[in-house]
Amino acid sequence: MDQDVEISSLGEFGLIHKLTDDVVLKNPSSVKGVGDDAAVIDNGGKRTLVTTDMLLEGVHFDLTYMPLKHLGYKAAVVNFSDIYAMNGTPKQITVSLGVSRRFTVGHLEQLYSGIKLACEIYGVDLVGGDTCASRTGLNISITCIGEASDDEIVYRHGASDSDLICVSGDLGAAYMGLQLLERERVAGEGIKDFNPEFGGKEYILERQLKPEARRDIVELLKSLQIKPTSMIDISDGLSSELMHLCSQSGTGCRIYEERIPIDYQTAVMAEEINMNVVTAALNGGEDYELLFTVPLSRHDDVKALEGIKVIGHMTDKSLGCALVTRDGNEFELKAQGWNAFKQ
Amino acid sequence: MDQDVEISSLGEFGLIHKLTDDVVLKNPSSVKGVGDDAAVIDNGGKRTLVTTDMLLEGVHFDLTYMPLKHLGYKAAVVNFSDIYAMNGTPKQITVSLGVSRRFTVGHLEQLYSGIKLACEIYGVDLVGGDTCASRTGLNISITCIGEASDDEIVYRHGASDSDLICVSGDLGAAYMGLQLLERERVAGEGIKDFNPEFGGKEYILERQLKPEARRDIVELLKSLQIKPTSMIDISDGLSSELMHLCSQSGTGCRIYEERIPIDYQTAVMAEEINMNVVTAALNGGEDYELLFTVPLSRHDDVKALEGIKVIGHMTDKSLGCALVTRDGNEFELKAQGWNAFKQ
Repeated sequence: MDQDVEISSLGEFGLIHKLTDDVVLKNPSSVKGVGDDAAVIDNGGKRTLVTTDMLLEGVHFDLTYMPLKHLGYKAAVVNFSDIYAMNGTPKQITVSLGVSRRFTVGHLEQLYSGIKLACEIYGVDLVGGDTCASRTGLNISITCIGEASDDEIVYRHGASDSDLICVSGDLGAAYMGLQLLERERVAGEGIKDFNPEFGGKEYILERQLKPEARRDIVELLKSLQIKPTSMIDISDGLSSELMHLCSQSGTGCRIYEERIPIDYQTAVMAEEINMNVVTAALNGGEDYELLFTVPLSRHDDVKALEGIKVIGHMTDKSLGCALVTRDGNEFELKAQGWNAFKQ
Repeated sequence: MDQDVEISSLGEFGLIHKLTDDVVLKNPSSVKGVGDDAAVIDNGGKRTLVTTDMLLEGVHFDLTYMPLKHLGYKAAVVNFSDIYAMNGTPKQITVSLGVSRRFTVGHLEQLYSGIKLACEIYGVDLVGGDTCASRTGLNISITCIGEASDDEIVYRHGASDSDLICVSGDLGAAYMGLQLLERERVAGEGIKDFNPEFGGKEYILERQLKPEARRDIVELLKSLQIKPTSMIDISDGLSSELMHLCSQSGTGCRIYEERIPIDYQTAVMAEEINMNVVTAALNGGEDYELLFTVPLSRHDDVKALEGIKVIGHMTDKSLGCALVTRDGNEFELKAQGWNAFKQ
């Protein structure tokens, strides 16, 4: 036992690997365990998908600027996003809450109103959970159950070395929204009736406070019979997620700086805080966009789709993972994404 | 919105009711939502069961006397118990952890060794989870997926007013184990090399630190083709659980003090701390025994079974829920069980 090894030295993925790499699945119904966006369980044809996310106050959210209703909405949606990332459809959730004394029934009703709204919009049923007292803060743990047929499911490991790398929407906005909220929180400290400056930055705020899962993209691809060869949702940042696809598929990759989709407001905010906007897009996290690969033969099909950008291609593993800059230089990608244990 | 209503004024079940009583299940696959030991999801014949439990340090467990391996074992087993209480078989779990800086990789390996041991013993696969940093303490949220055929599932609501009330094992021991641990913790405070007095009380300690789920009882009943009409596992105390069965089945009940199964060590410990042992059995909680009802016609069959005790019978709803004491008096049952919000 590594009694004295600090968790931060391994990082989240290293830790999960250390704790679970000796797990052997024994039930025939356990099709896929740890290591993808969701676990896959067989029910004699139809597959059940299971994913779970824990959100802790002071680590994942700050109630100073996160309204409880938005928090509930987001907590549900990030789980739906994991099911869509398997090319499945979310159907049920359970909600477990640990609640400290400073919360009232009204607070929890606000939180639940957001969860219920997300359920309504995405056609998901709230079927259970657990509610208990906590000593400090608000703890939220949501598990989502989804379904998919066996031949629909898209894993992280299916990409081949000539596949195109595609991403939906734009990147870095949620992270810039967080920077904006944090900047205004600090600016308003101790000032009565402080008026935060959010004008012209509504989009990046919404991306942070009320993200959506890309059901539309999954449905669009299905309607065009484009089945991704691998897929993941971008919760920790493009770099980190892309490296998951590469390592699990046994490929390398090249993505092109000029092709990374970035919204105007994201760029403005990055400029204001003197941050490289590409860094934000690569490592920001919480975008909940879909990152996926398709065979090269589908290039014309995906190129024509609104809201989807081809940002690069897979390569042979030996070529490693790199970002090609506008001036043609190559920088090795690093999974600097959100390491919760290094804060 | 009840902005100012304190959560403790509603209690856990009142709160859950308030937050979820407007939830309407819309997906055809959502067979049963909030309100039983597990949710039930249809997969075209075979049913998937889903249950989830949150365990928070300082609320549900105290690491002063709870070894991490035992904690992991217990955290998994209490979820299996919920699946057995539906007459199902647990098959998969996901484990989410929030971990503060004082924990090392070695600590988490101990915790996981207990989880894995429970999985091995009960034939369950660990298929996923989430691991993140917490600001304080250890947060554990486990979700268990089980299976059952449609005609196997036993809900809380199926009892009729002449059914016999049965309980497995004995009650109150886990609670007395906790009292013992707490007594010795206080006695040893500030004393170097303190030797706690656990002699002759191994059973109640084990009941608290390493509870088992009653798979054996579920299998025994199946082998005898005795299908309970209603069932629940005893996590909050006999009184509380019995009242769930009665309110959901629309019945009253009578249980008999002299028939409540209590172990010798439980009685001795209750005597030592001057507590009524029946109160401990009724309200103690964490026994993880099964409480179930069978038709009166199966009386001879269940009476003959080792490890199962008939403790009373259901009645017409109008008669209420009562404990009949040894001297023939009736006391109305109250769900005083473990209300986490009133601590």
